[in-house]
Amino acid sequence: MKGNVIVLNGTSSSGKTTLARAFQAQSTEVYLLCALDAFWDMTPYKIPAGSKNFPNMKLALAKSVQALAETGHNVIVDIVFCGEKTYRELTNELSGLKLTLVKVDCPLDELTKREAARGDRAIGLAKSQHESIHQGVLYDLTIDTLINSPTQCAQKIINYLL
Amino acid sequence: MKGNVIVLNGTSSSGKTTLARAFQAQSTEVYLLCALDAFWDMTPYKIPAGSKNFPNMKLALAKSVQALAETGHNVIVDIVFCGEKTYRELTNELSGLKLTLVKVDCPLDELTKREAARGDRAIGLAKSQHESIHQGVLYDLTIDTLINSPTQCAQKIINYLL
Amino acid sequence: MKGNVIVLNGTSSSGKTTLARAFQAQSTEVYLLCALDAFWDMTPYKIPAGSKNFPNMKLALAKSVQALAETGHNVIVDIVFCGEKTYRELTNELSGLKLTLVKVDCPLDELTKREAARGDRAIGLAKSQHESIHQGVLYDLTIDTLINSPTQCAQKIINYLL
Amino acid sequence: MKGNVIVLNGTSSSGKTTLARAFQAQSTEVYLLCALDAFWDMTPYKIPAGSKNFPNMKLALAKSVQALAETGHNVIVDIVFCGEKTYRELTNELSGLKLTLVKVDCPLDELTKREAARGDRAIGLAKSQHESIHQGVLYDLTIDTLINSPTQCAQKIINYLL
Repeated sequence: MKGNVIVLNGTSSSGKTTLARAFQAQSTEVYLLCALDAFWDMTPYKIPAGSKNFPNMKLALAKSVQALAETGHNVIVDIVFCGEKTYRELTNELSGLKLTLVKVDCPLDELTKREAARGDRAIGLAKSQHESIHQGVLYDLTIDTLINSPTQCAQKIINYLL
Repeated sequence: MKGNVIVLNGTSSSGKTTLARAFQAQSTEVYLLCALDAFWDMTPYKIPAGSKNFPNMKLALAKSVQALAETGHNVIVDIVFCGEKTYRELTNELSGLKLTLVKVDCPLDELTKREAARGDRAIGLAKSQHESIHQGVLYDLTIDTLINSPTQCAQKIINYLL
Repeated sequence: MKGNVIVLNGTSSSGKTTLARAFQAQSTEVYLLCALDAFWDMTPYKIPAGSKNFPNMKLALAKSVQALAETGHNVIVDIVFCGEKTYRELTNELSGLKLTLVKVDCPLDELTKREAARGDRAIGLAKSQHESIHQGVLYDLTIDTLINSPTQCAQKIINYLL
Repeated sequence: MKGNVIVLNGTSSSGKTTLARAFQAQSTEVYLLCALDAFWDMTPYKIPAGSKNFPNMKLALAKSVQALAETGHNVIVDIVFCGEKTYRELTNELSGLKLTLVKVDCPLDELTKREAARGDRAIGLAKSQHESIHQGVLYDLTIDTLINSPTQCAQKIINYLL
């Protein structure tokens, strides 16, 4: 039996990974976390990761999520869309699966503070993504990570899926 | 155009990841590192990772490697086989691709010392895998990580592929 | 000129490190983060870290904070007290410095959820510390990490120091 | 009773940390690993770590090693000297302790390959340190990490201490 797929789309530092790990911990169903960051970790260190140098990586991710679901795993995806292009690739590759699209939202000034505090992300990255990543994307659910704790955000997804 | 695939099979602590990163650094061709450990990282923390709880994970990995190669990426795979079962899954899923199978070898007493020094692996894990993982597997190349440095091991794979 | 010292005492998973990194990012003064976890990382992997096997480690930490402050660095300390014993060691070693003691608080059921989501802490650790670590400790400030975001918590410390 | 101190001085990527962890694993005596990298991790992410921005950090490290030894811990130090200045600070602060100074050596072209493979160090860092860090330093022991495995290097230190 094929698995279900939840997709979290939000800027860098919007709290997607923390939310996904909280969801895995609180859900009674078993979900695998498929993160775009894990795909960027695959690249040789001598070549900067990113869609510029690896334009097919998000398509490969979509096909890998299909592979995970096809072999019976539920999947929660942690990704930053290239707007409508990624939306089309994902919905196209994952047609036939139960797919839930979640917008992970956070005000820009909070994103900037988180970016400075975590130290492993380029300053300005969240801002550069803030405008474009949601363009042309239809969501099932929107979650605000400023006014909800990770625990509360995870519960909102669980409630939606009931 | 489809990518090529190199598969490194060896026990825990045999030096596969260090070898794969050295290969990526020294190779003029771009290769992505697809590691079994990254698949185990996908699982919820509350469920112990491993083939017992996730019996289809290595098949999902094989299909994901196919997805990466199909979208034009060369891939170096860092994996511990469940012997002939994984060998069959990989060769079956990746038929039609140029596939190079590398045995990553290291004496057991050296494995035990490395295991103790790295601290992030269960003591005895390498020993438990040592007998079974190579059963029924046909290799193109065998590399010994005790008598060769990672730099030298990577060069041996590069020379083989020429 | 000697540095100032802020001490964060709270259970595992109460959010001390995230708060300390947010404080470093938002403060106009330069602070070094001295974390108990970094001291446990010093131990050989073959010996379980903790006060049982290393009973003098928190005293060594207190003396190291003194060494950092004496060489001109402000320090924010991220630690789990052994109750009054650690309180006495710290206040004794750091007498003569400007010392601010902060209680990092979080309800137990939230701690338990965070513990499960992060995956790198033993389940039950926060609960085991919850009762004892604040015994006999006099605080300058108490901060609740459930009702305040890390950004807000950091601002509260900055406001207190003004 | 005061602890003994071993100091490993070598360039970035010369293999100091791997050697220190192997030593901890193989030694029958308990040693704590005090690494310069852990001190750089203390700094706010918004300020580049290094001796330029934190000129007293290696002196603070020397005093912290003294604090660890004074509280009964043996210590193995993993550090990159600012040549004779660090040598003087360490020997001055640690006078009265049993101190063993180890030169960790590796040819420059191997360092460059390792640097590229590990991906978490600036390219050229090892080269920039190669000339200067050993100036004016008197060693008890020199170890070559190209011709010896980490296991063998650790054994050489153990043999020296007997």
